[in-house]
Amino acid sequence: MSTDVLQLTAQPLTSEAFAAFGEVIDSRTSEHFMINSGRTRRHHDLAKVEVAGDSPRVLISIFVSQPVTVPLELTFLERHPLGSQAFVPMHEEQFLIVVAPPGDVIDPAEVRAFITDGRQGVNYRIGTWHAIQSVLDREGEFLVVDRGGAGHNCDEYPIAIRVTLE
Amino acid sequence: MSTDVLQLTAQPLTSEAFAAFGEVIDSRTSEHFMINSGRTRRHHDLAKVEVAGDSPRVLISIFVSQPVTVPLELTFLERHPLGSQAFVPMHEEQFLIVVAPPGDVIDPAEVRAFITDGRQGVNYRIGTWHAIQSVLDREGEFLVVDRGGAGHNCDEYPIAIRVTLE
Repeated sequence: MSTDVLQLTAQPLTSEAFAAFGEVIDSRTSEHFMINSGRTRRHHDLAKVEVAGDSPRVLISIFVSQPVTVPLELTFLERHPLGSQAFVPMHEEQFLIVVAPPGDVIDPAEVRAFITDGRQGVNYRIGTWHAIQSVLDREGEFLVVDRGGAGHNCDEYPIAIRVTLE
Repeated sequence: MSTDVLQLTAQPLTSEAFAAFGEVIDSRTSEHFMINSGRTRRHHDLAKVEVAGDSPRVLISIFVSQPVTVPLELTFLERHPLGSQAFVPMHEEQFLIVVAPPGDVIDPAEVRAFITDGRQGVNYRIGTWHAIQSVLDREGEFLVVDRGGAGHNCDEYPIAIRVTLE
């Protein structure tokens, strides 16, 4: 195995561990207030939707992704310089997350890998480097909230990463 | 039974039948293109996110709702004059929808009731009258994309409606 492959073990995703990269979207770990005469708990404003650049719009899309194999072998991370991007599983899909802080250079020491528990969604803050959607076990369907509009909104950064599970 | 109660039978939700009220969010009935080197189908821009008024923001929230009983008895519909509101089930929850077109008066002849199939989400267009979230059978968890910011964004309109299933 080449020594220039960054080796990471995916850690359980928590809001605290993910705070530098964005938000975890999860009703179980968030505050709520009651609406609809007490029939509904509103877990309010769980992710910061960010859009920049020319005439941006917020998009609601669905990604249907084929599962990855583990260990997960990556050759690059990507970022969206003009907007945040949220992924929420529609059937309790578990997925791997690999992230690095915004910036033009990725420091391998700052790359982190997480595994969700199936009910968690995430929002990647604007400019956050991340792996392409990496669902485990089976085809996954994710609701995605991200940015549309004019301008270049995807960069790739070459970096070799291998992610294992504990 | 009072004759001034509007009687409706919920119809299966389709994009065509719902077009006057907003969009159905469903990967099975939408176009896609491939991303992530062919690993992911992007069903792109499935709903029009609308925000108006002072310094609006787009919010991502989760609603956890207790189930309704059937027949569904409503005493009002509500609208959000400053923004659209999308609901997407997170565990294949089936829900009832009751809607009327935007406008300051609801014409009972224009009220419609639908039932989702468990995988469908919806986006209510700005100003569309709708029932509060009405999940069937069990507690439901929905990802909600709607509008935050200053200003009054919820009106109620009194109308007696009874919705039955076929």
